[in-house]
Amino acid sequence: MRDVAVIGIGMNKWGELWDKSIRDLVAESALLALDDAGIDKVDSMYIGTMSSGLFTDQEHLASIGADYSALCPIPCTRVESACASGGLAVRMGFMDVASGMSDIVMAVGVEKMTDVDGNGATFALATAADQEYEVFNGVTFPGLYAMMANHHMYKHGTTRDQLAQVAVKNHRNGKKNPLAQFRMEITIDQVKNAVMIADPLTILDCSPITDGSAAVILCSMDKAKELCKKRIVKIIGSGSATDTIQLAQREDISFIKSTAVAAKKAFEMAGKKPSDIDFIEVHDCFTIAEIMTIEALGFVEKGKGGPATADGLTAIDGKLPVNSSGGLKSKGHPVGATGTAQIVELTKQIRGEADKGRQVKNANLGLAQNMGGSGASSVVHILEGM
Amino acid sequence: MRDVAVIGIGMNKWGELWDKSIRDLVAESALLALDDAGIDKVDSMYIGTMSSGLFTDQEHLASIGADYSALCPIPCTRVESACASGGLAVRMGFMDVASGMSDIVMAVGVEKMTDVDGNGATFALATAADQEYEVFNGVTFPGLYAMMANHHMYKHGTTRDQLAQVAVKNHRNGKKNPLAQFRMEITIDQVKNAVMIADPLTILDCSPITDGSAAVILCSMDKAKELCKKRIVKIIGSGSATDTIQLAQREDISFIKSTAVAAKKAFEMAGKKPSDIDFIEVHDCFTIAEIMTIEALGFVEKGKGGPATADGLTAIDGKLPVNSSGGLKSKGHPVGATGTAQIVELTKQIRGEADKGRQVKNANLGLAQNMGGSGASSVVHILEGM
Repeated sequence: MRDVAVIGIGMNKWGELWDKSIRDLVAESALLALDDAGIDKVDSMYIGTMSSGLFTDQEHLASIGADYSALCPIPCTRVESACASGGLAVRMGFMDVASGMSDIVMAVGVEKMTDVDGNGATFALATAADQEYEVFNGVTFPGLYAMMANHHMYKHGTTRDQLAQVAVKNHRNGKKNPLAQFRMEITIDQVKNAVMIADPLTILDCSPITDGSAAVILCSMDKAKELCKKRIVKIIGSGSATDTIQLAQREDISFIKSTAVAAKKAFEMAGKKPSDIDFIEVHDCFTIAEIMTIEALGFVEKGKGGPATADGLTAIDGKLPVNSSGGLKSKGHPVGATGTAQIVELTKQIRGEADKGRQVKNANLGLAQNMGGSGASSVVHILEGM
Repeated sequence: MRDVAVIGIGMNKWGELWDKSIRDLVAESALLALDDAGIDKVDSMYIGTMSSGLFTDQEHLASIGADYSALCPIPCTRVESACASGGLAVRMGFMDVASGMSDIVMAVGVEKMTDVDGNGATFALATAADQEYEVFNGVTFPGLYAMMANHHMYKHGTTRDQLAQVAVKNHRNGKKNPLAQFRMEITIDQVKNAVMIADPLTILDCSPITDGSAAVILCSMDKAKELCKKRIVKIIGSGSATDTIQLAQREDISFIKSTAVAAKKAFEMAGKKPSDIDFIEVHDCFTIAEIMTIEALGFVEKGKGGPATADGLTAIDGKLPVNSSGGLKSKGHPVGATGTAQIVELTKQIRGEADKGRQVKNANLGLAQNMGGSGASSVVHILEGM
């Protein structure tokens, strides 16, 4: 396998982008990434989107995305694994370059979530759960994560305040990210007293509905040395795994096994261990998710994610900064774009280009964890500055 | 890049499968392919489906597919490019093995199209066209292909009888395929006098709505020599390309440029030319499509696809048998499964395992062409018996 580097990143300002179509979103980040890389074409392209079909009545987005980014007739493939779609787009790009099939590849993640009315977004998101065994019985995503949270609290003694601290910390980081959707600080009391969505999760425990995109350009290491004017960031590990979608069929509903399996593969490929890592971006679609993922990734012991968060381990100046971008909670969660945006953030941090107040010190080795639904799929990448 | 072989194939009986869910369809072909390969696990998996979201309210099918095929926690990725999804699943599997990331990979194509009512299937299929510029104005897929057909007839003198001959020939082959949906012969008069869908295309010019799946298992050549009890079939070429979705933006609406570009790449990789090829499977979603694709692939001159078909070039005993499986027209067209099923057919033919009356003589080198929508994406594979 050939070595693969990130040589370009692009991300638009996330939010409720009423004046932009999904094709505009793809092109916007794609062109920013090309500009960042200082090139005007790539050999192939991947687009991660969870459900452009249900959100915008548009499948076949790969062709529209390539076309509107002025990149036809290059090969372009849409990949999907619910909210892990963006991470998988990066992984496909990694494989494409590693195999020698292409030298330069673009991976774009995108979701346009606000063009549906009524409960359209809730309905579309629920298709990431098991339609025949979970959704049929009336459960939605906050409901699934609420069950996981309750189980984690019961089994490990995780507290309501510890959950809230995840949101507080991520909003503190996101306030300093000009591309984030919700740039305000919040308090533990505000989280606890916000409108209840699914007990114990209030609306401030939940990531928002967002329109947005993010793009990365991957390249063989040889070519990167020739093209890249900035610090070269190498993808040294990539892991992916699946699990049963139904929580009812899992051994432990508050442990994300697919993340643990994907992380193991990524660490093996990278020849690294959790203690080597300087900072991470994880999939905090709900506050409990961040706690479960730092456990599954092996950064803290099972059940210790809550206390570790409360003790400041994961703060921007802590020993392991988590979600310096603001995470899904504050930055926003255009589901298909999230995994790609994590790689944008890792690259930005490793290059030392993050905004003031959220630049991680000595950010050389970063990890991104992206997951689908309630954890039935996970993708983990490890990036290192050269 | 490592050499890649097909070591297992599986396909269920296609049709209106009311008693089967989409997860059953995935598992059915996956298990048949494992059985054919004589193995019980793979390292990774790809699922091609155009719109499990709109057809069955289920995204995140990769995890369900891996789970119900008893393959969790392996990585599984759903890929989509409208009706070219199955071909792209094979291409991703090819890259996965070629890169050295995995030794054995499964690619499954699937679509469950009959669980929608009213015009649900027409609506879902239309999402492969440009929603904002084509569908918004009321066009459906038969309408798009009817425009292409009219243009081809006007520009090249293609006749109504020549179009009909594609359907007649494919039904003749499909009658002998026990897995095909519509196993009956039809005549040119029947095609011409059938109910009109979009002038000049009658219902017998159109491929049907189908439930079905097909799976192939790919493997590094070294491992194939060790595992494979049957004739080894090598993938010697893979090409993929995109084009603008909107017909209005193309230079020539009756020439499938994405197919021409993808074929060029596949032929280059394989070190072959059209005259080397023994037989092909192409994407005859409408009769005119087969005529346009044999032209774009370079087997006949531009504009000569109609006369070539009428003259018997593409018959099972012709110089270049096309769609020995019955094609999309007779075998059925569960959109995401079609591209994978083409690789199943090529492998079956090269192994000499095709049914009586439709086995191609000296089938050593085959080509498969799969395309999305009205040709905005194409995937071409070339397979050779070892």
